[in-house]
Amino acid sequence: MASYLITGASRGLGFELARQLLSLPASQVNKVFATTRADAPGLAELAQKSSGRLVVVKLDVTKEATIKEAAKEVEADLAGRGLDVLINNAGKMPWTPNGVATMDDLEDTFITNVLGVHRVTQAFFPLLQKGKLKKVANISSTLGSIALAPQYAAGPAPAYKITKTALNSLTVQYALGYEKEGFTFFAVSPGEADLSLKWLKTDLGSQNADLSVEVGAKAALDKIIGAGKEQNGQFLNIKIEGWEKTGPNQYDGVNPPW
Amino acid sequence: MASYLITGASRGLGFELARQLLSLPASQVNKVFATTRADAPGLAELAQKSSGRLVVVKLDVTKEATIKEAAKEVEADLAGRGLDVLINNAGKMPWTPNGVATMDDLEDTFITNVLGVHRVTQAFFPLLQKGKLKKVANISSTLGSIALAPQYAAGPAPAYKITKTALNSLTVQYALGYEKEGFTFFAVSPGEADLSLKWLKTDLGSQNADLSVEVGAKAALDKIIGAGKEQNGQFLNIKIEGWEKTGPNQYDGVNPPW
Repeated sequence: MASYLITGASRGLGFELARQLLSLPASQVNKVFATTRADAPGLAELAQKSSGRLVVVKLDVTKEATIKEAAKEVEADLAGRGLDVLINNAGKMPWTPNGVATMDDLEDTFITNVLGVHRVTQAFFPLLQKGKLKKVANISSTLGSIALAPQYAAGPAPAYKITKTALNSLTVQYALGYEKEGFTFFAVSPGEADLSLKWLKTDLGSQNADLSVEVGAKAALDKIIGAGKEQNGQFLNIKIEGWEKTGPNQYDGVNPPW
Repeated sequence: MASYLITGASRGLGFELARQLLSLPASQVNKVFATTRADAPGLAELAQKSSGRLVVVKLDVTKEATIKEAAKEVEADLAGRGLDVLINNAGKMPWTPNGVATMDDLEDTFITNVLGVHRVTQAFFPLLQKGKLKKVANISSTLGSIALAPQYAAGPAPAYKITKTALNSLTVQYALGYEKEGFTFFAVSPGEADLSLKWLKTDLGSQNADLSVEVGAKAALDKIIGAGKEQNGQFLNIKIEGWEKTGPNQYDGVNPPW
């Protein structure tokens, strides 16, 4: 029986992670806090049918006051229990079509993709310390791998790539810092599951490019639920049968290089 | 005959890089632009003795208007010629003694260590395109290596480490983006040459911990001057004779892992 909190759950991967967690038995997942910065009709509908297992929480990762408010709300709901698993999913991927020297949204992207994760983790840290699993999954991307950068050079998203690299580094700092307290921090790449990443399918020429958000979320949850202390500080990659034949670092379940 | 611009040159490594570049023959280094955000008596004195080879330029990497103003000033001074080498040296390293969950200066450190480098590179890009060498050296650190993070876990500087990782990623994005235009972008770790890094000597227990800023700057300049197109996108490490015996990734001249 575990409680989860997922940021950026109004749509896309975050929504699907919440939906799939709810489809598991209540004995395994008793509560899912799904955060959204704006009204999210899909989440509201899911909450109505959830018999109280899904709680929608307002939270904008770029606005610290809303994060602190959300942490209070979740604390009250948990009524003395801790939060078991935090999934930092909220993120953005702006495009820079004319080359990195023209990039004008690096700070803005950093605030969402890195600082947002740090602030959310900070705010929920006391609840996580009281949790049974003490697990934090940061949704990253193989696009954040510096070693793999040449392979993804055609994708015009430098701010996304750079901030996902920074997120990986942040994840490892937390992992090293709180391992002794029983925490497990890791980064996980959900592949093309985030619908905003569809451009990869055409630009990078994958032949098997019809990975749906459902399949990606399922594979990411496998990694998140399966991760134990030995995954602390690691960069996990999803595994989808058949994909491992399409090339290196393609959903083969092998940790990507940094 | 080449022109250089070094940011953060009022003291420490930046000042020493400027001083050593001036000590080379004018046939090799004809002009050094040394930027500082505040009055820098040491630089002013160096400029006075330089027969016009050292030009002090006001520039604060956190203030975009000052960067643009500086670029205009340098352009006027170069009178139609390009800038050959840019050394992005300005940086900061705040401490976080009570663990990464208490870090409150990540954004501020990012603005100096990453966004500052990006903005300076952007502003000087047209001058670099006109330059003969098109070389950009970003002063990074092995502390920014995610793979080496366990080795440096005792150093309480998560914001520095995370932003240097991001700087490495930014460097590779530039390297991949402008290789075809003849650019060479690389990151270089000057070791403990930056005096602000002295804490490493005690906390990390190095036995040979008396690397002076002069020695570190000399070793970094060897790498910067020696770098050719084959170093584009690389993470260079200084080489100092004798140090290679002290352990892995210790000034052995071998590129650190990302």
